[in-house]
Amino acid sequence: MRSATRDRIVRAALSALAEEGFAASSARAIARRGGFAPGVIYYHFEDLEHLLVAVLEWTSEMRLARYREELTGASSAAELLLRLRALYAEDLAGGHVAAVQELVSGAASNPRLGPAIVERLRPWRELAEEVAHRFLAGTPLEPVLPAREVGLAVLALYLGLETLTHLDRERSGAEALFAAAAPAAVLFDSLVGENGGATA
Amino acid sequence: MRSATRDRIVRAALSALAEEGFAASSARAIARRGGFAPGVIYYHFEDLEHLLVAVLEWTSEMRLARYREELTGASSAAELLLRLRALYAEDLAGGHVAAVQELVSGAASNPRLGPAIVERLRPWRELAEEVAHRFLAGTPLEPVLPAREVGLAVLALYLGLETLTHLDRERSGAEALFAAAAPAAVLFDSLVGENGGATA
Repeated sequence: MRSATRDRIVRAALSALAEEGFAASSARAIARRGGFAPGVIYYHFEDLEHLLVAVLEWTSEMRLARYREELTGASSAAELLLRLRALYAEDLAGGHVAAVQELVSGAASNPRLGPAIVERLRPWRELAEEVAHRFLAGTPLEPVLPAREVGLAVLALYLGLETLTHLDRERSGAEALFAAAAPAAVLFDSLVGENGGATA
Repeated sequence: MRSATRDRIVRAALSALAEEGFAASSARAIARRGGFAPGVIYYHFEDLEHLLVAVLEWTSEMRLARYREELTGASSAAELLLRLRALYAEDLAGGHVAAVQELVSGAASNPRLGPAIVERLRPWRELAEEVAHRFLAGTPLEPVLPAREVGLAVLALYLGLETLTHLDRERSGAEALFAAAAPAAVLFDSLVGENGGATA
């Protein structure tokens, strides 16, 4: 059930996660940030863990819609890469990357939270798989790059890159990979033809 | 400075991390596991963080030597993949994967530990880079797969895969990718020729 108060709690939790980190995101810290009493959280959520999972659901849903919208229109690998780069910049600016990273690393020490987090990451894996399928199906690369495993690899690569970035507080890994992938995207397009795989 | 006691403390910490997790790996828990008094730790290490970094140094050094030994002998991509798969199985059995994963996710909430952990992961990135260079240099793929970024991507992929695996307590991701990569390795070998890139 959605309500204005529930959304406000979720937004306060997202901002607490992104700016203060998982360990500091207590019910009290989230309530202070949102300007409501801690008890309000427990009126809308069973416990803090349910609220944290709701943050991932909320941010995922919003960002997935935006990713789908942008990626559906990409007709070449070069364009796909440009759009991914812009989407990633949006993720960073909105605190989404930081919040998801905090949830993922925080969940590692919480056996109840872990499986719930992986479940909410599944649509991202599926989106990566769909895009891989759209670009690879009907090309000579299809037999050696199965879309399902490409989807898993893309999600894992993203999480691992964020972990490294988060650990040493430098944000250059993703940029370096985006830059390095540009010539490969151009080569891919020249081999399969613009619109080659992407319209199959 | 190395000593038998120091090694014993490091091994006890590795086993505590792998089996009890980062949050439960207190000085007391490590001492109990190793059968010594907690004070012994502080005689050999400045604090618990220095001990945890020493665990990563120890396990990394040992495993890096083993990886180098095995990977140097691989003369085709198909063989490289087989050897990586066997090495990964060794990592799992020895508790190395679990300990490193605990350190990486635990370090996320510890601003002093994070950069020290990334620093100790650097030789792995460099090893991946060296192997990528050996296989790609002189092949048509060299211009589109820069070894430096391949090294970063391999390390990030490994960490991300371990994170996903750790979160939902299922160990199938790495196996699925190893299996899916086999046809690509065979294609690579047929395109650049056995020993093609690998002897450059």
